Amino acid sequence: MDTAAGTNEKVGFNSWCPFLISDSIQKLKELAQKIRKIGKDDPRRVLHSLKVGLALTLVSIFYYVNPLFHAIGTSTIWAVLTVVVVMQYTVGGTLSKGLNRAFATLLAGALGLGAHHLAAVAGDKGEPILLGVFVFMLAAMATFSRFVPEIKARYDYGVTIFILTFSLVAVSSYRAEDLIKLAYQRLSTVAIGVATCLCTSIFVFPVWAGEDLHMLVAANLDKLACFLEGMGVEYFGEKMESGSLEGKSFLQSYKTVLNSKATEDSLANFARWEPGHGRFDFRHPWNQYLKIGAVTRHCACSIEALNAYISTLQQSHQTTADLEFTQKVQAACAEMSKETGKAMVELAASIREMKWSSTAGKHLAMATEAACRVKALVPAENSTLLEVLISATTTSLLTEVVRCTNPIIAEVEELSRLVEFKRP
Amino acid sequence: MDTAAGTNEKVGFNSWCPFLISDSIQKLKELAQKIRKIGKDDPRRVLHSLKVGLALTLVSIFYYVNPLFHAIGTSTIWAVLTVVVVMQYTVGGTLSKGLNRAFATLLAGALGLGAHHLAAVAGDKGEPILLGVFVFMLAAMATFSRFVPEIKARYDYGVTIFILTFSLVAVSSYRAEDLIKLAYQRLSTVAIGVATCLCTSIFVFPVWAGEDLHMLVAANLDKLACFLEGMGVEYFGEKMESGSLEGKSFLQSYKTVLNSKATEDSLANFARWEPGHGRFDFRHPWNQYLKIGAVTRHCACSIEALNAYISTLQQSHQTTADLEFTQKVQAACAEMSKETGKAMVELAASIREMKWSSTAGKHLAMATEAACRVKALVPAENSTLLEVLISATTTSLLTEVVRCTNPIIAEVEELSRLVEFKRP
Repeated sequence: MDTAAGTNEKVGFNSWCPFLISDSIQKLKELAQKIRKIGKDDPRRVLHSLKVGLALTLVSIFYYVNPLFHAIGTSTIWAVLTVVVVMQYTVGGTLSKGLNRAFATLLAGALGLGAHHLAAVAGDKGEPILLGVFVFMLAAMATFSRFVPEIKARYDYGVTIFILTFSLVAVSSYRAEDLIKLAYQRLSTVAIGVATCLCTSIFVFPVWAGEDLHMLVAANLDKLACFLEGMGVEYFGEKMESGSLEGKSFLQSYKTVLNSKATEDSLANFARWEPGHGRFDFRHPWNQYLKIGAVTRHCACSIEALNAYISTLQQSHQTTADLEFTQKVQAACAEMSKETGKAMVELAASIREMKWSSTAGKHLAMATEAACRVKALVPAENSTLLEVLISATTTSLLTEVVRCTNPIIAEVEELSRLVEFKRP
Repeated sequence: MDTAAGTNEKVGFNSWCPFLISDSIQKLKELAQKIRKIGKDDPRRVLHSLKVGLALTLVSIFYYVNPLFHAIGTSTIWAVLTVVVVMQYTVGGTLSKGLNRAFATLLAGALGLGAHHLAAVAGDKGEPILLGVFVFMLAAMATFSRFVPEIKARYDYGVTIFILTFSLVAVSSYRAEDLIKLAYQRLSTVAIGVATCLCTSIFVFPVWAGEDLHMLVAANLDKLACFLEGMGVEYFGEKMESGSLEGKSFLQSYKTVLNSKATEDSLANFARWEPGHGRFDFRHPWNQYLKIGAVTRHCACSIEALNAYISTLQQSHQTTADLEFTQKVQAACAEMSKETGKAMVELAASIREMKWSSTAGKHLAMATEAACRVKALVPAENSTLLEVLISATTTSLLTEVVRCTNPIIAEVEELSRLVEFKRP
């Protein structure tokens, strides 16, 4: 029996073997393509990887070269550690982490020395107890401070390093002989590490968070413009009976804008740490980009609602009878859509080139005019019809909200199926 | 002159002094209130802070107690370091960081030893060069792997620790005598640190990321319901000529839902690491919560558009003439709004209690029925009017998008003013 099973397995393995190999080769190929794509999409990523390697190699020279090593000793290894954790993709990220680390180490080191001297008064038996109390209290208070949103946003890493250094100094003070020397070594190695990171970050192909934020805000406007111009041509455009919009790429472009808040916030946070560079001063109004981002997202929300409404409309196959009226409305809509799109393209270009142009305002004025024209299509004396229009819009929008609830129910039901919710 | 100025300053200081003191006291009071509020909003934050203090005190016992210290030596300090960086607010966060740290240390330690043996072959002069090449290559490759979204989401910290440990072992192997002992000590101290964190996280007032995600998704549905029910009563409600909605709190409740993606993603990411707890199994479908979150946000977007439209309408002070028709539409809208709100409350309760109820579907059916009723208000034979309605809604929504562009222009102009863009 056993032998038979063994043979069977062997046969199975042999026949599966070529398949397994070709399968793995296929997967490796896919992985290679994916990696190549990541590098091609933004070559700065490859450069950043090489920069991290460079910074690490530079700092480890302190360990290999004898005179340098003997000046600082084995704690040189802390410089390596600092480089690994401080080195970030953007200059602002590196600066934020580096300065947080340096100042937190300095402050916590001094406090740790103070705690050591205080605890030493308590004698041999009391010292570890007092040190333990200090560490407990400081760690608890510092951890709690991280829940303050302002500290969380800017000094989160600093607080971690503060707890870390204070604990290290306070705890090791119990056994270390020459605490001052230890603190000095630790501080100087951290300084070496931070300085290496900053030099590599700033002077070797720097990636500025501020510039990325600048470009991201402009690109988001372009995405909205892409939707509006696409809509103006494809849906409201000349061919009245426009075909299905499904699968058009411009319908997707704006969706990433809706979730861009986290990226914008983190870039703005890093940008604040960066020195002046290129067209950006040190006190460049990064907050203003966040405001632009917020209203852009608000607009993307309206576009999302419009897109959803049009999709529903297309599915219900409304036929048109009053051709003249509809044509006029369509034409006005096409103009509104295209002109708003053009205004956004102008705005994006204006941000990108940092060159104010009033063209965007003109385009928007034309869009607003077209909107008024549609309103005027409804005869002024017929006030009832205007009311009908307003009521209808509100109703339709609300219907859209109602319709949106359907997938929520579906998804929750899916969850209830997956987790086996109780059913009455 | 100098003396006069000195006297003036002194007088100025004396008269300012009480003001400065009362000002600082005021600020301190505000800070104290803010801190008390943070603690009161979620008492688990205070507990978490105490837990971090506890874990640190526990692990530092290894340093204070002689027999324990002599078993491991000065590298006990690495256990303290591990606790500070691994301890997170949620169990999932701690598990994710702890396991990442443990496995990355193990893997990188082994690779580092291998690199040391390879480099040793090159002789005294070649060794540091070869070690440098290894560190450079591994650091660059590992850093690049962080740009792969899947690795970034789950193993970002592991990759950092991998680079860190490999560099530490490879670099220090050049001078360390007993590398195996060093690696063993480092691994055991990391294990002690991770174990302490996990025990404190899981057994002392645990905060589960999964439970938080579960509650957040339900709370977001409640926020949308709050808006819809508020709207149903206050705007579409019985008092036809409803007053201004400005300043109503229900108008704000749904706004946080729009930006909840980042929080949901990170909670789901942590939840996947958590063992089964309470009502949640290890393989609980956390992804499904993300799907619910996505459709909830989509709905919040429609609500945002509706809210914006209604606000615009209220500002333009439309008067009503055809009372009967408008009343019918208002009543139907009120029903749609309230019933959808009720459906969402039901769904939230259903998630929270993990108990499926079909009531939500019934509420939504009533809302859909009300929507159909409004459509039927338009006489069927008058197909032109129906078209007018559809065109009008589309137009209005588009007008809303156009209107949204205005603040973007304003904000970009504000930026151009702040940065002094070039003006043609």
